Amino acid sequence: MHPNLKLENIRNVLIRQEETIIFALVERAQFKQNEIIYSSAGIPIPDFDGSFVDYILRGTEVLHATIRRYTSPDEHPFFKDLPDPVLPAEAYDYPIKKTDININNHIKDIYINKILTAMCVAGDDGQYGSSAICDVAALQALSKRIHYGKFVAESKFLSDKETYLSLIKAKDKAAIREKITNKNVEKRLIKRVALKAATYGKEIDLTAPEQENQKQKICPQLVADIYEKWLIPLTKDVEVDYLMARGC
Amino acid sequence: MHPNLKLENIRNVLIRQEETIIFALVERAQFKQNEIIYSSAGIPIPDFDGSFVDYILRGTEVLHATIRRYTSPDEHPFFKDLPDPVLPAEAYDYPIKKTDININNHIKDIYINKILTAMCVAGDDGQYGSSAICDVAALQALSKRIHYGKFVAESKFLSDKETYLSLIKAKDKAAIREKITNKNVEKRLIKRVALKAATYGKEIDLTAPEQENQKQKICPQLVADIYEKWLIPLTKDVEVDYLMARGC
Repeated sequence: MHPNLKLENIRNVLIRQEETIIFALVERAQFKQNEIIYSSAGIPIPDFDGSFVDYILRGTEVLHATIRRYTSPDEHPFFKDLPDPVLPAEAYDYPIKKTDININNHIKDIYINKILTAMCVAGDDGQYGSSAICDVAALQALSKRIHYGKFVAESKFLSDKETYLSLIKAKDKAAIREKITNKNVEKRLIKRVALKAATYGKEIDLTAPEQENQKQKICPQLVADIYEKWLIPLTKDVEVDYLMARGC
Repeated sequence: MHPNLKLENIRNVLIRQEETIIFALVERAQFKQNEIIYSSAGIPIPDFDGSFVDYILRGTEVLHATIRRYTSPDEHPFFKDLPDPVLPAEAYDYPIKKTDININNHIKDIYINKILTAMCVAGDDGQYGSSAICDVAALQALSKRIHYGKFVAESKFLSDKETYLSLIKAKDKAAIREKITNKNVEKRLIKRVALKAATYGKEIDLTAPEQENQKQKICPQLVADIYEKWLIPLTKDVEVDYLMARGC
């Protein structure tokens, strides 16, 4: 089996991504919600049809596309019509099947309308650029994690081809979802990310009494909820979609 | 006094920037040194004179310039000839004197040749894009922190105008440096960032024995050294330069 498809290696990648996601959320949580940056009418950008955040996100993707970011099997852009790489194409290892599965629009919607509203203090602090730059980092990290479901699904498929093939043939999505689910792994994951959020979001103040050091930049339970309500189910959506698209 | 110039508020900004810096360093530390991305000859980019990292850094600055990042008094670009903002100019509060002090070239040199070599495992893991994107975040955070010395200097100046004016007039840089130095604050800062690095760089593994959880993604002493050897002295360089340029 390709090393990138060994379930143990995949789990290590996903575990390391937790830090990236939590750091990005902690960084964004220092600013207020700043609703204005998420609507097209909020801060109109000349010659651009979209929100302030869309403008920064698309501009970042345009730049990253030129250095081949989106030719990598674990990267998925939020925007279409990005420029071609300026670098020669690289012979990427592509251990999964190519599909056009990309649920970034859905991820962006949940990030803006569910995660940010729960995570950031309501209101406007004028920190639009800083907030948007944190948003780009967070969205890219969330997208990468969720679409890594393709690797997870391919790995699981290879470990029990026969069963998966019969479920795919029967188009039994519910049974596929059931089969890819490992409740114990999920429980451990949720416990772990809550602990990570508590640790990485801890205020450190040498002069404050011990108790005050318990202040948190982000609520650990919120991070656990984000994983339980959104990241895990969305990753499973990608896994199921991938297996259905994969066919035999 | 302008609220952004109150020393207590400035210290709070600098303290919050520590998290941003440490998160960026921890993120970069997961990849190897990848020397190739720092030399112009390493990965030649068509129609671009510079390294792979320069290409990403400049591209990011071009984008951020269009949304006015570098009109803010606490932001300094690494590159010149950036485009004008596409957004109308904002009436920024500008509580410090305008100067053309920008030591980003020096900061980039130290980051690449001192910090990265001490922080990252030697060698090449092929993670060029990911490394470069972490570098951009780290360089921007370091630059912001160091150039915040302008605010620090203005604040200190206003608190004792008479003494500073006589030192500036005498061009006594050594005495200015002596006067802006607060050894106790520095000692606390170094202790605090080591503790932050130990906390935010901690490996969290629910299944590992307690002892193994002591593994670190980045050496806390290294972060303390980075502050002691580079960030604090460079901030003081900016403070002294600022006061000399400020004049009366």
